[in-house]
Amino acid sequence: MRFTDAFKLTLSEASRLIRANELSPTELLESLLQRIDRLEPKLEAWVTIDRDGAMATAKRYSKEAAEGRLRGPLHGIPVGLKDIFYTKGLKTTAGSKILADFVPAYDATTVSRLKEAGAIILGKTETTEFASFDPAPTRNPWNTDHTPGGSSSGSAAAVSSGMCPAALGSQTGGSTLRPAAYCGIVGLKPTYGRVSRFGVYPLSWCLDHVGILTRTVEDASVLLEVLAGHDPKDTASSILTVPSYRRALDSLSPPELGLLREFFYDNASVEVRENLEEVTERLGKAGAEVVEARLPKSFAVVHAAHRTLMIAEAAAVHEETFRTRMADYRVKLRGMIAAGLLVPASTYLKAQRIRSQFTREIAVALKRFDCLMMPATSGPAPRGLESTGDPAFNSPWSFCGFPSIAVPSGLTKDGLPLGIQLVGRPFEEEVVLGAARWCERIIGFGHGPHDPK
Amino acid sequence: MRFTDAFKLTLSEASRLIRANELSPTELLESLLQRIDRLEPKLEAWVTIDRDGAMATAKRYSKEAAEGRLRGPLHGIPVGLKDIFYTKGLKTTAGSKILADFVPAYDATTVSRLKEAGAIILGKTETTEFASFDPAPTRNPWNTDHTPGGSSSGSAAAVSSGMCPAALGSQTGGSTLRPAAYCGIVGLKPTYGRVSRFGVYPLSWCLDHVGILTRTVEDASVLLEVLAGHDPKDTASSILTVPSYRRALDSLSPPELGLLREFFYDNASVEVRENLEEVTERLGKAGAEVVEARLPKSFAVVHAAHRTLMIAEAAAVHEETFRTRMADYRVKLRGMIAAGLLVPASTYLKAQRIRSQFTREIAVALKRFDCLMMPATSGPAPRGLESTGDPAFNSPWSFCGFPSIAVPSGLTKDGLPLGIQLVGRPFEEEVVLGAARWCERIIGFGHGPHDPK
Repeated sequence: MRFTDAFKLTLSEASRLIRANELSPTELLESLLQRIDRLEPKLEAWVTIDRDGAMATAKRYSKEAAEGRLRGPLHGIPVGLKDIFYTKGLKTTAGSKILADFVPAYDATTVSRLKEAGAIILGKTETTEFASFDPAPTRNPWNTDHTPGGSSSGSAAAVSSGMCPAALGSQTGGSTLRPAAYCGIVGLKPTYGRVSRFGVYPLSWCLDHVGILTRTVEDASVLLEVLAGHDPKDTASSILTVPSYRRALDSLSPPELGLLREFFYDNASVEVRENLEEVTERLGKAGAEVVEARLPKSFAVVHAAHRTLMIAEAAAVHEETFRTRMADYRVKLRGMIAAGLLVPASTYLKAQRIRSQFTREIAVALKRFDCLMMPATSGPAPRGLESTGDPAFNSPWSFCGFPSIAVPSGLTKDGLPLGIQLVGRPFEEEVVLGAARWCERIIGFGHGPHDPK
Repeated sequence: MRFTDAFKLTLSEASRLIRANELSPTELLESLLQRIDRLEPKLEAWVTIDRDGAMATAKRYSKEAAEGRLRGPLHGIPVGLKDIFYTKGLKTTAGSKILADFVPAYDATTVSRLKEAGAIILGKTETTEFASFDPAPTRNPWNTDHTPGGSSSGSAAAVSSGMCPAALGSQTGGSTLRPAAYCGIVGLKPTYGRVSRFGVYPLSWCLDHVGILTRTVEDASVLLEVLAGHDPKDTASSILTVPSYRRALDSLSPPELGLLREFFYDNASVEVRENLEEVTERLGKAGAEVVEARLPKSFAVVHAAHRTLMIAEAAAVHEETFRTRMADYRVKLRGMIAAGLLVPASTYLKAQRIRSQFTREIAVALKRFDCLMMPATSGPAPRGLESTGDPAFNSPWSFCGFPSIAVPSGLTKDGLPLGIQLVGRPFEEEVVLGAARWCERIIGFGHGPHDPK
């Protein structure tokens, strides 16, 4: 190909070709824009597409690449950004009426890092209102009658359908891994504190994570390496040094996995269970050690405590605006803020203590394994756009802040994707990525973009 | 002396003599116990004195010292512990009816560290109820009609009067530096996260610090070096490595000090102002650079936000006990818990945001100086035991978690001690201790224990 089908390339493939001067950033961008022209009317994944800005940058970067000057590991790679990431000079609406005309004066730290690494900001993707539960218009590329999941709806649909090779999302409950699983792609939520949230519109400070959406585990590792690291502008940002995630993928051995049937099996659909059984068997045959793992007692109250923290902090974020513009919030977030304003501080603090306890206990459970494994969602993407699906399988890991990744694991009879979820020890993303890459190879789901019916 | 007057020795002096086999731990302990026999009826600094346990340990350690076997930098040094530090097998009452008969099954991390360093636990010192505001019976050694300050009342009085060379306290508002200043000794509050609070009964998780009370800055640095370091059992514990605080004192040069007249001057008594002027002049003449510093705007709401966090978290700590045993709480803490239960989570979170903002802003102000300097208290120890005095000069530094130290700076006409307070950058205790040591030498207050009238 030279290269009308460049949209099919994964981030890493495109990057290798750009480095080898076999593909120019302009060619890549043109192919993606053509793909967008064809699919966007059907999928509605984008709030803003910065055609002119992206093309101008692509031309400049093409010239630089031709001269052998590369800005970084993402030189010339177009990426999508969930519309809660602040982009200097580019509208950032958070899917809301409140911020309908908001143009940030600065970039989020993650956006700066992407730019410094040579990425091209292609545009802003659809999100549920303020990354909460009121749905975006986006449709699932695998079946446009179904939700792509949320809240990172547009990022997941865009990557899944080949409108961009990678996109950023966020996760407070299950907002990265759930849409990734529903759309048949990879979704990575790094450890709390690993990637700066500065300039990302908050939903809940203690639960919010930046998420990474790609079609391969390798691509996720490349992006994580660019994004990870200390940022004094985010008080929760960790000072721990960042290893080479990409290099960690080079030496792959079969992982030791703790299979969580408890809760995750019981609350999953028949097809999810069957998929999990089949995948477990294949991974085991290929050499992985899969052992049944147990949940700590505190898991029983994790979802309630997660919700308490989320609604109380969302209420604190929105309190002032809410008092004057209540009608401009959509119904689900409006209810969440109203409920959050009624949470007493002592209840909030009790939820924080449950969080500390669960975090300690799950760390003990993870000592015996490389990762915990479970289905990424209780079922495939629900029909209709009213609900973005249930985050219950992902929110415990947002709650404790441990790194988690969704990897596609098969299709339902109706042709909707399913995924497995791996959870690792804090700040050991290299272990999680290594295990995910190994599973990805054994499962062999395929990395090409999906063509919507 | 050989060594009936060993109680007069500072921790470092006693330690040097023990190392040189010129003083045995038994001799030191005996001298301190005699001092206690004489003064305790007057001062009421102790809840529990573990005579038998301490003596048995002292005899064992004397034998070891004679054989040249030293356990650590505190070999044979008796220390006092505020009665909120968990001591295995030794009653820990927190000055309360609720815990009147509580005997912990384990040691606080700090207590373990003291023991590993060779310290002898002499006993438990009086505290206000649950380290709050209901006073202990303890009296100020400089004038027994006056409070020693609180909440670390017994620790300050015991160290000041030579009943022990060092003691641990805690600080949520001003509970270490205030009693230190009132009693004419050194009080150190390390950076939030520097010293583990595991096994220290909490008042407010986000504000509680372990405090160190000694008669010299050098002694405080020796204790800090023993106590500092990561503890996975305290979720706020920092992973930053611990420098040698003691060695940092070896190379002393005149510090650059940012003098905070704003607020601290305006709210101080005439004698405190005069003392500050005099001290400032002497430090300046000796070579210190003293420049007027400014407070950030957010300082205006710091005390209100501090109180919001403190009462909300105290309410969360005590909520369950409070519902069944309200009458067993004394009046000030009872009111605090009742008020704390009414704080909405969104108000609590607003206070946390003010804390983040103030912390950021004060860090900027501290870039230009080694330390900020101001009076340690608004006046000398108040008359009577009803109030433990006003923490308003100390609580901003508990709020932002920056290291602070009180150094004696003179006496009022009535013979009551005054102190200056130095505040440094987070995790730069060596700078704070260096500046404090330099000031201590220039001021020349003296390190001997005070004899109560």
